[in-house]
Amino acid sequence: MSGFTTKPTDEVAIATIRTLAADVVGKANSGHPGAPMGMAPAAHVLFSQFFNTNPKNSKWYNRDRFVLSNGCALEYIMLHLLGFKLSLDDLKDFRQLGSITPGHPEAGHTDGIEVTTGPLGQGFASAVGLGIAQAHMAAVYNKDGFDLINNYTYVFTGDGCLMEGVASEAASLAGHLQLGNLIYIYDDNHISIDGDTAVAFTENVEQRFLSYNWQVLHVDNGDSDLGAIYNAIAEAREEKNKPTIIRLRTTIGYGSKQQGTHGVHGAPLKADDIQALKTKFGFPPNEAFHIPKETYEVYGATATRGAKLEKEWDALLASYGQKYPKEHAELTRRISGKLPDGWEKSLPVYKPSDAAQASRKLSELVLTAITPVLPDLMGGSADLTGSNLTRVKAAVDFQPPSTGLGNYAGTYIRYGVREHAMGAIGNGLAAYGGIIPFVATFMNFVSYAAGAVRLSALSKHQVIWVATHDSIGLGEDGPTHQPVEVAAHFRATPNVDVWRPADGNETSASYYSALTRTQTPSILCLSRQNLPNLEGSTLENALKGGYVLYEIQNEDLTIVSTGSEVSIVLEAAQKLKEEGLKVRIVSLPCWSLFDEQPAEYRLSVLRSGAPILSVEAYSTLGWQKYSHEQFGLPSWGASGPYQKVYAKFGLTGPNIAVVGKKVIDFYKKKGGEVVSPMVKAL
Amino acid sequence: MSGFTTKPTDEVAIATIRTLAADVVGKANSGHPGAPMGMAPAAHVLFSQFFNTNPKNSKWYNRDRFVLSNGCALEYIMLHLLGFKLSLDDLKDFRQLGSITPGHPEAGHTDGIEVTTGPLGQGFASAVGLGIAQAHMAAVYNKDGFDLINNYTYVFTGDGCLMEGVASEAASLAGHLQLGNLIYIYDDNHISIDGDTAVAFTENVEQRFLSYNWQVLHVDNGDSDLGAIYNAIAEAREEKNKPTIIRLRTTIGYGSKQQGTHGVHGAPLKADDIQALKTKFGFPPNEAFHIPKETYEVYGATATRGAKLEKEWDALLASYGQKYPKEHAELTRRISGKLPDGWEKSLPVYKPSDAAQASRKLSELVLTAITPVLPDLMGGSADLTGSNLTRVKAAVDFQPPSTGLGNYAGTYIRYGVREHAMGAIGNGLAAYGGIIPFVATFMNFVSYAAGAVRLSALSKHQVIWVATHDSIGLGEDGPTHQPVEVAAHFRATPNVDVWRPADGNETSASYYSALTRTQTPSILCLSRQNLPNLEGSTLENALKGGYVLYEIQNEDLTIVSTGSEVSIVLEAAQKLKEEGLKVRIVSLPCWSLFDEQPAEYRLSVLRSGAPILSVEAYSTLGWQKYSHEQFGLPSWGASGPYQKVYAKFGLTGPNIAVVGKKVIDFYKKKGGEVVSPMVKAL
Repeated sequence: MSGFTTKPTDEVAIATIRTLAADVVGKANSGHPGAPMGMAPAAHVLFSQFFNTNPKNSKWYNRDRFVLSNGCALEYIMLHLLGFKLSLDDLKDFRQLGSITPGHPEAGHTDGIEVTTGPLGQGFASAVGLGIAQAHMAAVYNKDGFDLINNYTYVFTGDGCLMEGVASEAASLAGHLQLGNLIYIYDDNHISIDGDTAVAFTENVEQRFLSYNWQVLHVDNGDSDLGAIYNAIAEAREEKNKPTIIRLRTTIGYGSKQQGTHGVHGAPLKADDIQALKTKFGFPPNEAFHIPKETYEVYGATATRGAKLEKEWDALLASYGQKYPKEHAELTRRISGKLPDGWEKSLPVYKPSDAAQASRKLSELVLTAITPVLPDLMGGSADLTGSNLTRVKAAVDFQPPSTGLGNYAGTYIRYGVREHAMGAIGNGLAAYGGIIPFVATFMNFVSYAAGAVRLSALSKHQVIWVATHDSIGLGEDGPTHQPVEVAAHFRATPNVDVWRPADGNETSASYYSALTRTQTPSILCLSRQNLPNLEGSTLENALKGGYVLYEIQNEDLTIVSTGSEVSIVLEAAQKLKEEGLKVRIVSLPCWSLFDEQPAEYRLSVLRSGAPILSVEAYSTLGWQKYSHEQFGLPSWGASGPYQKVYAKFGLTGPNIAVVGKKVIDFYKKKGGEVVSPMVKAL
Repeated sequence: MSGFTTKPTDEVAIATIRTLAADVVGKANSGHPGAPMGMAPAAHVLFSQFFNTNPKNSKWYNRDRFVLSNGCALEYIMLHLLGFKLSLDDLKDFRQLGSITPGHPEAGHTDGIEVTTGPLGQGFASAVGLGIAQAHMAAVYNKDGFDLINNYTYVFTGDGCLMEGVASEAASLAGHLQLGNLIYIYDDNHISIDGDTAVAFTENVEQRFLSYNWQVLHVDNGDSDLGAIYNAIAEAREEKNKPTIIRLRTTIGYGSKQQGTHGVHGAPLKADDIQALKTKFGFPPNEAFHIPKETYEVYGATATRGAKLEKEWDALLASYGQKYPKEHAELTRRISGKLPDGWEKSLPVYKPSDAAQASRKLSELVLTAITPVLPDLMGGSADLTGSNLTRVKAAVDFQPPSTGLGNYAGTYIRYGVREHAMGAIGNGLAAYGGIIPFVATFMNFVSYAAGAVRLSALSKHQVIWVATHDSIGLGEDGPTHQPVEVAAHFRATPNVDVWRPADGNETSASYYSALTRTQTPSILCLSRQNLPNLEGSTLENALKGGYVLYEIQNEDLTIVSTGSEVSIVLEAAQKLKEEGLKVRIVSLPCWSLFDEQPAEYRLSVLRSGAPILSVEAYSTLGWQKYSHEQFGLPSWGASGPYQKVYAKFGLTGPNIAVVGKKVIDFYKKKGGEVVSPMVKAL
């Protein structure tokens, strides 16, 4: 009943993948040969029989997506054989400095890599984002006779990924969402780094995925039963209302003398083993990187088919444009990554006389204002919708229509209490294209998703974190929920914009920045408590990352602050003014943007001549870069009504005035010029 | 067939819990009344019928442990009713500043709280650590006729916890480990913050836990079928080879007009609703915090039983001491938290002439040396044993004996690829007492466990992270695996010691510190690559957190560094010496210890008079606190052989010499006194 009969070229192609895996890892003298060798048959069947891709245009929108969750050399080998921009020399450069073939596949670094993998579980979960994106874009744009968006997402995953919590979270959500476009192949090779999976991983994986509402299939001989692999993938494609996982029993390092042991997991094969392997497969034993012509031909056929499919798709899209010009314009704009002209005019603008509001509320007002003009936005919360204020009134939930709770055209995602998967799914949504994802939780629990945020930043995925309840201002929930270290963590992460807006205009600016910086994730740290609108805060000012909010010449002190503390330091400045002291105020809502400003500007904001004091309700770590003296949280927060918690930590106008006076006196007594921390040798 | 017949006092006690929950949250005007009201029957049956505890001695070693994973007021209510050090006034002070009843239960803050909960999933996973600890201590110390250690761990958990990945990881491991001492009661109330769990959580929980090898029971009417609850707990206690989860169908906010809706989840009940509730239960409708005498009597009986049990246990322990004096001495020492006399003499000491070694290897040598004298150590790795070098040769795995892979007396835990659960389980192991847990992964993946590390620190749990592959020195694995931001993250976290030892003696010091600072978790950041042993590094010096490694008067520059970069800056200093420039070197392996030194000492190490340059292969964020100029990683790392990666980022002796020269010239040109960053107003 198989629709597939093994041909000699199939054997050759599979042997090519296996020997290349040995050679690539062998030449680098580093890497993981075992999994690619074991998964070669599955990779071969998938890419030769099913996978729609045009290697000459890795960005074709309706391509199938491939995610190698147990990220390793296999992906580079397949990209090369399929004809992507990855040469044999690139394969030989595996894990070498400056190569496009680093230790683990990085999106944005190597053509054809959809999402970054290697950190276990991330690929598994990101792929759910790719699946959500397909289902959503199809629901919004496909029309009768125009099945424009119908790709599959194929995922290879191993034991390691399945042990990670982020994968469990994503799997449960994918089952709930009935994502029939997801096909996972689980490399059940019984081996992880510590040896046999019997030491730590004895759960019943099939039963577990059944509990998540997945279709579960299995192939008992993944080493050579190509027909069974073919049939399983074909069956998976037929299931439209469930994700599928195919448990594929394989032999890690198949063909090696050490096959089936963890000896082939993370270390190169020995030279004689590689020779024997090649001899076994009828390959020249002493020739490295041998690729038979037939192998190139097999995968060349996939490339030819894909190029043809893209051409047909282009024609379909063009005729769609005839019939549905508005949808066509919107879809192509979204695919291009360009925002609609004038969208930013919708951003709320505030005057100081406008009522004080929590920045989480200001965020809701932004979302309410821009959602009608930005269909690209697709967001949700990890079960804190009513607290994060992320669901605008007109929103429709992204849900399987059969639930009666929404539909796939809906843009609001109910993530459940699954922060880590939410972050990884955000990466998948961003990677798919046409979607700008936002995700929401309490700021403190962005830490649960640290592994995913890191990969957003490394992979340049534009994911927007709506991180409310941003400090001790959350009050009663207490220290377990009050971030102290979180801002420092993400400020230290390259390519993350951490925003902490002080009022309405700064909140609008944070969204403007997050939406226009398309290569950078942003974390918007938003208050639970009300914040007054400030004189001097404007979108333009805030977009410099930092600016002088209150200017005065010959100052005795500059106080630099962020978010909810800015109005407190303004109060302190007023108190000090009554004592005849001149205090400038700088608002610094986004360090990374400020760091990008010209040196002259930065020095004009944080200028020499008087001490600079930073005030922020977090750990002070890092503020030494922008100030001479720091005032913040010395330890954990506390549980209580927020005003009392602020008072306990001295974060009140009167106390900051006392602290400021102390700083002024100290530097006066010390004498000598006070030089700006911006004046540096390096 | 029930062993339980409901009496009127049971109804009264349950009504007391329900009305107290409404009053406690109502008075605070903040909190979660619904879950305590729904779980009151289960709490009542558990605490009145099964739970062994002596409220007068919350540290009795063989007490049953209770973990309220969906941490809320219920735990405080039960502690009060049972007679722990938590008064009615403390209940009235719920969520008030300075109270012992903060928003979520914190271990170390409130008597009787075993582990901190609230951040979802943490309690679920920490409880697995409590279960491992019991199984282990029993296997080591129990003897025929001396069933000294046989407590159960009872856990209440909700939908939110079950959605969290950390709970999935822990559940899979607990099933593998066949921990029959774990009894979880799942509050299946169909409600989370976003509303009905139908919006995001539709998996089959029973099937999922069966897949993990748990015993799965259920009670269909958790609102009033006390007999069924009793029977389920009794049945759970009988299953010795599997953890049990009892799915208890409850009505959230039972008794409220809004029962069964998310309206009762996270907000106080209205006044009239509370009145009606009390009337319904026959309580005075206008009296707040009404506690009938019968209720105190019911739980007083539990306390009386517990006090008697402890007395009997004390006698058993004493007679154990007669028969097994050695084991008795060791057990009581371990329970007391005291290390054995002279253990530190086992720590390796190095001379500069000793061979260079990776600090992960030096860590292995420490573990090898101290394991024989420190039976308290119980550790493992998240499937990176061969890379972390955490399993000493003589180790026995902690495994169910039936697996043939080890036994419960074994001290080496195979965590699988489950970093977050590993961190939380570490908290449970530390909380149990008698065990000092270490856990291991690549430093980069400590971030996956951020939620657990944070609670180690907040709860003062002594968990030791062996975090190897600590920077770009891991080389080929590339940026996905190279920590840049991780040190800043944990240095910004209160009560975490981040260590980055530079050589053998500093590695020994890091362990000495981690083992003796019993209220603080430590993260030991260890290199993959070899590090030379340094002249001037000693245990005593390193234990100050920072010290002058190479002293010279009238210096032109001080370079402060850590870990693998210390030998690089020494090389730079040598190069600059050849140019006639005097460079002091400071090693600063642990910032938090250094910060605890007297101001005078800190100023003597990082003294005024010459610029200070920091060099470390991480983000420079935070180094401004200790230096005038910073050199580190400006962005992500790179994949390649580590020497080449170091060279790419300028982290070589010759380049640091160039950088140092630039700093010297800049400050000479700038003129004026160079003041130490230790000289501060605040």
